[in-house]
Amino acid sequence: MTSKKEPFEILVSSVRRYINAGVKSRLWKFLSKLRTEDIARVLDRLVFENKKIIFELLKEKDIPMLAEVLSEIDPEDAVELLSDLSPKEISEILNEFSSDDAAELLSEFPEDLKEKVIQCMNKEESEDVKELLQYEEDTAGRIMSTDFYALEENTKISDAVAAIQLATDVEVPFYLYVVDKDYRLVGVVSLKKLLLYPPNTKLKDIMLKDIIYVSTDTDQEEVARKVERYNLVAIPVVDKNKKLVGVITVDDVIDIIREEATEDIYRMAGVVEGERIQDPVFDSLKKRIPWLMLALLTTFFSAIVITYFEGVIKNAVILAALMPLVAALGGVAGNQTNAVVVRELSMGDFDWRMGRRLLLKHFLLGIALGIVVGLGGAVFIKIAYKFLQATIGLKVGLDAGIVIIFGVGIFFNILNGLLMGTVIPMTFRFVGLDPALSSNMFVSMFTDTFGFFVFLQLAKAFYHV
Amino acid sequence: MTSKKEPFEILVSSVRRYINAGVKSRLWKFLSKLRTEDIARVLDRLVFENKKIIFELLKEKDIPMLAEVLSEIDPEDAVELLSDLSPKEISEILNEFSSDDAAELLSEFPEDLKEKVIQCMNKEESEDVKELLQYEEDTAGRIMSTDFYALEENTKISDAVAAIQLATDVEVPFYLYVVDKDYRLVGVVSLKKLLLYPPNTKLKDIMLKDIIYVSTDTDQEEVARKVERYNLVAIPVVDKNKKLVGVITVDDVIDIIREEATEDIYRMAGVVEGERIQDPVFDSLKKRIPWLMLALLTTFFSAIVITYFEGVIKNAVILAALMPLVAALGGVAGNQTNAVVVRELSMGDFDWRMGRRLLLKHFLLGIALGIVVGLGGAVFIKIAYKFLQATIGLKVGLDAGIVIIFGVGIFFNILNGLLMGTVIPMTFRFVGLDPALSSNMFVSMFTDTFGFFVFLQLAKAFYHV
Repeated sequence: MTSKKEPFEILVSSVRRYINAGVKSRLWKFLSKLRTEDIARVLDRLVFENKKIIFELLKEKDIPMLAEVLSEIDPEDAVELLSDLSPKEISEILNEFSSDDAAELLSEFPEDLKEKVIQCMNKEESEDVKELLQYEEDTAGRIMSTDFYALEENTKISDAVAAIQLATDVEVPFYLYVVDKDYRLVGVVSLKKLLLYPPNTKLKDIMLKDIIYVSTDTDQEEVARKVERYNLVAIPVVDKNKKLVGVITVDDVIDIIREEATEDIYRMAGVVEGERIQDPVFDSLKKRIPWLMLALLTTFFSAIVITYFEGVIKNAVILAALMPLVAALGGVAGNQTNAVVVRELSMGDFDWRMGRRLLLKHFLLGIALGIVVGLGGAVFIKIAYKFLQATIGLKVGLDAGIVIIFGVGIFFNILNGLLMGTVIPMTFRFVGLDPALSSNMFVSMFTDTFGFFVFLQLAKAFYHV
Repeated sequence: MTSKKEPFEILVSSVRRYINAGVKSRLWKFLSKLRTEDIARVLDRLVFENKKIIFELLKEKDIPMLAEVLSEIDPEDAVELLSDLSPKEISEILNEFSSDDAAELLSEFPEDLKEKVIQCMNKEESEDVKELLQYEEDTAGRIMSTDFYALEENTKISDAVAAIQLATDVEVPFYLYVVDKDYRLVGVVSLKKLLLYPPNTKLKDIMLKDIIYVSTDTDQEEVARKVERYNLVAIPVVDKNKKLVGVITVDDVIDIIREEATEDIYRMAGVVEGERIQDPVFDSLKKRIPWLMLALLTTFFSAIVITYFEGVIKNAVILAALMPLVAALGGVAGNQTNAVVVRELSMGDFDWRMGRRLLLKHFLLGIALGIVVGLGGAVFIKIAYKFLQATIGLKVGLDAGIVIIFGVGIFFNILNGLLMGTVIPMTFRFVGLDPALSSNMFVSMFTDTFGFFVFLQLAKAFYHV
């Protein structure tokens, strides 16, 4: 939030300087001192040809380090960087990935290249990846890691400790999962507990049996909610037979939560998920056009309403100046409500009881807001036009009738906005769609159309035209 | 997302049934079998008098359990539930809280009650809480936990293990922090490492010295970004002298990320942060009115523009029907862009170089989208009005001139929308404000005003009126 130059900015500048200087040995010396996460973050900021330079350098110098960097950057960038290599070369890099990261990246590859790369990979690694890829996208099975600790329930603490000492290829284990002889998950032991009991104690005697777990087909958002709710750092994944097949760690959960929030924000604004700021113009164009065409359709309803009242406007053109305000205020009120309801629906639990309560609350709030803003709007418009007459000599006067119609129109359209902002996302939820699809555009369609209609209809009735 | 009855829904119904039956012993028997996190989640769904019943029951039966439940529910609800108790009673419950949760709750109390409660608390607990409360809100110091593991660097592994075995009041330690004799943070050791080396090894010989940490005054969003970037499960907090004073765990980080995302969504929709769906109507009213009044002001600019073109509209009332479409399409395009830019700015790093690239991209995208939607809009409106004439006998024809003006107006306003959607949040960022404050309202103000202006000005020039 500050405009001071942060340490990271200096890092980015340094890398750019080394790249421009063109001396690879010095660039490598600099990069090799950095954390892989920081290299990944620097990479995100460079143009593609510079990304490629660092990619080539790491590929030459340190494949495991390259693998770590690639698993941290945007998957689409990683795919693009890898695309020039042969399946054999790609597989050598992917062998160094954790199985879940490898599967994530491979799922972005074209189908035939994916198959070829998997064939070239290490047997163990390729089997893990193939297993992960068989699960649906966005499920626990797809994002879980198959590198985890599990020991049989009759294992003694001393043997468990020895096993941990031997295992080097597994990420820091926070929990030790305990399975029965059929590999079914039966308990969990924290590393701390291993330190607390005598070495010959069996795991089954100290394990916690009340385990929180998910199935391979659990939706990733549900996984995130469970980890969040029970303050876990990892959650085990079981298959249909309750066999332990994987583990999901909290860093993946954080990614899911971020993704989900971005999706909500994008959907509410009518942006296709997955649009990235660094997309080429043509890609963004393709992603944006459908929504804009839909917007053309939805806003057309208000044009029909206005056309219908053509005669009324011809007799009092001031109506044309005021009607967008009535529509816009309903839209703002509707979109405020929509944001609150959508966010609540996408995070929390929901039932009819809550729906009724929400609707009642927004009905009352709509009446109250409608009265306050309607009155405020009427007073404001009267004063504002007086002011414009006095200062810039605007030649339009507002008679009392129009001021009253304006205020009443605002009242009805704000009430309308609050009801639409509540009903539309709830309807989406009840028919099984993401409430965030209830975008500003849909709410505005109703508030615009109704706003123009109620205002012009009131004017028509009042002026008998 | 599904409409099937989930296990949790059955839980909520059961609790409601037990409450209605009024037999406390059976309600208690049921609750005592649940996890505290689940009780908290059930509580969130009950009306206040039922929350109160469970609160009283837990207070009578199990104060530590009550403390756990209270630290999991919405802090405002917790404060309300506690508000009837004496400072002494409140302090007894808060003694069971972790220091960071206690501080969070106390900061929601009225000042005098807060002081009284702190005075009644255990000495150790009250000192921790007082220390936390001296830090600014939303900083690492405020949210850190002061219950953590730290050992001197010359400690032997065997002594470290003994110390862990003795410590029972500390949350599961994933990392062991290592300090020098002045309590300055010098390293970190994972529990796994304690198992890998001989018992008489000193911590300083096995510790990782390259520690990622934050200061007490680090903004909580920066804390979240660090934990996320380096895939940590906890991060140590140091004071000005690099003394270790606390630890922030990943579950708090998840809360921050959620909060931040909600704040972005709310701000973009012009909702005051902290508005909750369960707020009383009057509270929501107070929170919403300022933004709506601001919206009245911003939309008034478009009314001035339209008033200025009164003569043009009188001569061709069809303009009044089409101008909202030109304005709305610019608004949709602007809000799409705004959402992408705001989200990117609030998550990622940003510099002038990126700003220039963004602006250039959206300029080109604006031209491309403007051409496509402008052409599409012109063709659509021609066909749509023809269709309405043929079917419902609408008596308005569109001459070629108006159709062309409509398309050109859309072109310019979409380009305008993309530029505003980029420039406004970037400007907010550069003056040190949250880009998310660049709400739909501000973007719409520009796209409405400019949309009406460009369309009506084109019409005026074309028709020489």
